[in-house]
Amino acid sequence: MRTLWDKTKTGNINCDVSAMKKGRRNTPTIRDIANMVGVHHSTVSRALNADQKQKISPKVVRAVEKAADKLGYLPNIAASTLKRNRSFALGVLIPDITNPIFPPVIRGIQDVAESEGYTVITANTDDDPTKERDAFRMMRGRGIEGIIIATARLSDPTVDECIKYEIPFVLVNRTVRHDGVNAVILDEDCGVRAALDHLLGLGHTRIACISGPTETSTGAERLESFQNFMKIHELQSDLVERTAKYTVEEGHDACRKLFKRNKPFTAVLAGNDLIALGCIDALNEVGRQVPHDVSVVGANDIPMLSRMVPALTTINTPMYKMGCQSATTLFQVINGYSSDSVVLRMQPRLVVRDSTAPPQP
Amino acid sequence: MRTLWDKTKTGNINCDVSAMKKGRRNTPTIRDIANMVGVHHSTVSRALNADQKQKISPKVVRAVEKAADKLGYLPNIAASTLKRNRSFALGVLIPDITNPIFPPVIRGIQDVAESEGYTVITANTDDDPTKERDAFRMMRGRGIEGIIIATARLSDPTVDECIKYEIPFVLVNRTVRHDGVNAVILDEDCGVRAALDHLLGLGHTRIACISGPTETSTGAERLESFQNFMKIHELQSDLVERTAKYTVEEGHDACRKLFKRNKPFTAVLAGNDLIALGCIDALNEVGRQVPHDVSVVGANDIPMLSRMVPALTTINTPMYKMGCQSATTLFQVINGYSSDSVVLRMQPRLVVRDSTAPPQP
Repeated sequence: MRTLWDKTKTGNINCDVSAMKKGRRNTPTIRDIANMVGVHHSTVSRALNADQKQKISPKVVRAVEKAADKLGYLPNIAASTLKRNRSFALGVLIPDITNPIFPPVIRGIQDVAESEGYTVITANTDDDPTKERDAFRMMRGRGIEGIIIATARLSDPTVDECIKYEIPFVLVNRTVRHDGVNAVILDEDCGVRAALDHLLGLGHTRIACISGPTETSTGAERLESFQNFMKIHELQSDLVERTAKYTVEEGHDACRKLFKRNKPFTAVLAGNDLIALGCIDALNEVGRQVPHDVSVVGANDIPMLSRMVPALTTINTPMYKMGCQSATTLFQVINGYSSDSVVLRMQPRLVVRDSTAPPQP
Repeated sequence: MRTLWDKTKTGNINCDVSAMKKGRRNTPTIRDIANMVGVHHSTVSRALNADQKQKISPKVVRAVEKAADKLGYLPNIAASTLKRNRSFALGVLIPDITNPIFPPVIRGIQDVAESEGYTVITANTDDDPTKERDAFRMMRGRGIEGIIIATARLSDPTVDECIKYEIPFVLVNRTVRHDGVNAVILDEDCGVRAALDHLLGLGHTRIACISGPTETSTGAERLESFQNFMKIHELQSDLVERTAKYTVEEGHDACRKLFKRNKPFTAVLAGNDLIALGCIDALNEVGRQVPHDVSVVGANDIPMLSRMVPALTTINTPMYKMGCQSATTLFQVINGYSSDSVVLRMQPRLVVRDSTAPPQP
């Protein structure tokens, strides 16, 4: 079945790349399909190209497709990337895949991308600018058709580069300060108000806030919403600590700083669930029980919270849906369906569990 | 700075792929670098190729590297994939990224791959053979240089295809029945013995086993180790249920099936942590407390277990290390350093928490 042309080509393998070449050595080519069907290889090429198959008779298209399936033919995506200037690949920048927020976001992106025939290349930046720059360059070198950025700071060099080089991009979860970007984020104000309404309803008035990094939109917006809400309700809004990262450790340390102020509080609004868990650890260390002595509210609703003690009350962020929506929006940009930038704010939902209760009288 | 050649090329853009082309339109080429340095573009090409730069004077190499950095030059990986027949990409097949076992495995693979200049393409199979076949074809179409498979069944068509097409591959976490494969898996027997020694030491003798799917090596090997251990200690080993998947729901349902046998047991060895959590749910439903009435042991040690109630005793699997090691082994195969197949068994560690206690007298 294999032609002389293929045999000759196989004979040209360089030693140092033999392992990779092996990978394609037994792979049938369009010439094998052409031989099987009895047509010219350019006919096979057109029959297998969605944009060109209408030029070929349906009977031949079916015969080619059948032969391709039988032989296990694979299109060479590197060749088609060069020829058609499309890579059918998207990039995704996340801080760290082991942070429980991100797997559902990535899964949402992957599910939409796969349904469009696209591959997703993910890189962890660890919120390190050098790693982020290197990952972004690697993705551009691979000719990604667009990128989803979950790592944005309010002022962000990667976003600036996307604009400069006209690379389609969508921000997910976090956005930037300036206009003219596509973003799929949470309605942060709505979430914070729901959480604070809940605490006020329980009778809390001395509420502290441990905010996430305020150079991220999630940190800055949640803190702003907290301060606005407290002012509107004529409550003190100065019990605030900021963390440098969204981690358990940072939440723990920020809570200890709160203690040192010697100002009483009966509830804490935490920047996210990990910060909330660290905060609960710090409270336990000084013998203050949650929710008996202090109520704590998180944000995101990471998996397994309902199995923890106390089960954390939190602002649920629909991470999987946000992943899906960010990919859908990116395809609209890539395919030129949308020229105006759009910021989609998803609706959060307060999940009340066991970490909030009325304050002690 | 841009040459006529580039302008002409840019002018040839088709409308439908304009978004993608935009992505590279402002990207400098080796001809821009050549113009800046004042050398021929083939000299630039050699100067930027690690295998060929020794043919060029070090002074020119430095000038080219400086210009490339200044212009923000990116190598076109699709072109080099075709020309050098290397994609610098690895594939990873996992069941589902939102299963908490897999993010650390992927992170380990990504960390090693990135340090070698490789990109990782991950796909979720949901343990669905059709999805797995499609994902594997997509990866082969992209010319991946090797693949890490976390989805293997004891008899596995993807593994068979890797062997047939001579694609370098390494199995991680699960292996297949036949020899001649590279795998990085757990020393399952060691883990099961540690867990059962612990239960025996507490005084348990009526121990049930809810095994994972026995068409996976993890399920089959853990069950075999359980049965061997029980026989050696002259204990009944017939209290066994098998799940079809490694999920909380399957663990719950299998535990309910155990109840229906009306045979008493005081401890359960679960196939993994998710099965163990489902088992605890089922026990709670019928009013049996863990560990007071029944002790439960899981496997893997997924994140946050220590915060749950009861905190699960489990066999810790070093998932991040296994990810790193699987990538390291794959590079040895790709680079031809190892011709013999090797099965690396990583050492598990029993983590005793609050879900195990002496049986009630």
